[in-house]
Amino acid sequence: MRIEIEPLQTLPEVHRGDNLSELIREALVREQRTLSGADIVAVAQKVVSKSEGAVADLRTIQPSQLAAQWAAQWKKDPRLIELILMQSKRIVKMDRGVLVAETRHGFVCANAGVDQSNAGNENLALLLPNDPDGSARRLLGELGCGAVIVTDTFGRPWREGLVDVAIGVAGMHALDDHRGRVDRDGRTLSSTIVAVADQLAAAAGLAMRKAEGCPVIIIRGFEWERAPGGIAPVLRAPEQDLFR
Amino acid sequence: MRIEIEPLQTLPEVHRGDNLSELIREALVREQRTLSGADIVAVAQKVVSKSEGAVADLRTIQPSQLAAQWAAQWKKDPRLIELILMQSKRIVKMDRGVLVAETRHGFVCANAGVDQSNAGNENLALLLPNDPDGSARRLLGELGCGAVIVTDTFGRPWREGLVDVAIGVAGMHALDDHRGRVDRDGRTLSSTIVAVADQLAAAAGLAMRKAEGCPVIIIRGFEWERAPGGIAPVLRAPEQDLFR
Repeated sequence: MRIEIEPLQTLPEVHRGDNLSELIREALVREQRTLSGADIVAVAQKVVSKSEGAVADLRTIQPSQLAAQWAAQWKKDPRLIELILMQSKRIVKMDRGVLVAETRHGFVCANAGVDQSNAGNENLALLLPNDPDGSARRLLGELGCGAVIVTDTFGRPWREGLVDVAIGVAGMHALDDHRGRVDRDGRTLSSTIVAVADQLAAAAGLAMRKAEGCPVIIIRGFEWERAPGGIAPVLRAPEQDLFR
Repeated sequence: MRIEIEPLQTLPEVHRGDNLSELIREALVREQRTLSGADIVAVAQKVVSKSEGAVADLRTIQPSQLAAQWAAQWKKDPRLIELILMQSKRIVKMDRGVLVAETRHGFVCANAGVDQSNAGNENLALLLPNDPDGSARRLLGELGCGAVIVTDTFGRPWREGLVDVAIGVAGMHALDDHRGRVDRDGRTLSSTIVAVADQLAAAAGLAMRKAEGCPVIIIRGFEWERAPGGIAPVLRAPEQDLFR
């Protein structure tokens, strides 16, 4: 068994309104590659958001008093802070210049996923896709691969450095449930549920990063059980969440 | 550029006191493989701990009052709870049957990294290696590959499912610092520090899990800057930690 992770190398810069799956298919043709049902395609959120027009123009945003104060205190753009608050369903932490929020989708991340870099213009900021599972499903249908993962780059409590995680999944279970399987000693691995979509996103991130500007990654040789997908099982329920 | 992730498939069951690098070298010979300076080897904590004898016998442990009470309340083994408390430098959360602790090494994880499954016997529990960076350095020297990552499987706040992370690193920087590099639009990617050792651990985890019982993974095709290593840069300083 060998897992192979390869970037799509000739994808052009993606612009607002571009048909992303068409751009991917054209790049595949240029690179003389084909996708099969055994392939997983990981796509960085930034190109999904761009193609879907999930972009906000900061010039249209009127900062609230909270946004203006926080921005002044931490030397941030008050319009950007207001946009982050607008994209938040709940503020988890707001301390020392860091804003950790729960998005409408249920992701807990810095700045509610709002990203000013890569937006194409300093007055623009990229938002998370409206429905990342839907984006993944659409790409899956249009590309004809086996599964699609939309990835984003998140920080973590306690550990420095960002990692890529899944924010949208189609064609596979986001979690791989090993409960009930036994270890080598016959002990039941009672609590082993692996965040397989997140592990795949992290693996894809290795190739995205090294080949700067390669937001589409093809993963081959990984076996998984076919399933409709969806990121919901990854999002911890409030009553289970010790770090709410 | 293609990253390849392959498990070592003929490593035998590792026992206390085994010479792990010798077992790995023998398996490499059996599989007609060689390691080069371009290869990264990821090794699961459980076999490192076993080979180093980082195993506790629960029969020798006298539960404290706190351990006994908590165990009774949550139907756990009081000796195991006491062992977890003994392995903890600080309790981060102790709620609803879950114990999240900071270990002596500075890792924040469930049960202070104590693992009763895979220990080989219900009276035994695996502990984290005494010095995971040292374990990685020793393996690096003995295997002659380019880098070694000792991995463990951690849960996360807010997200269900476990992911593999690095707990010991040799031969590379645990963090890949992209600060100062510019994105396609010329904007400085000011805060992009990628937890590359954690991403490699997650990628290795895909192969460890699928080939159950393959705790040693070879990663080829990933390029990195040589460095002594060490996990310390990943451990967030208390004054930066919003979830302490």
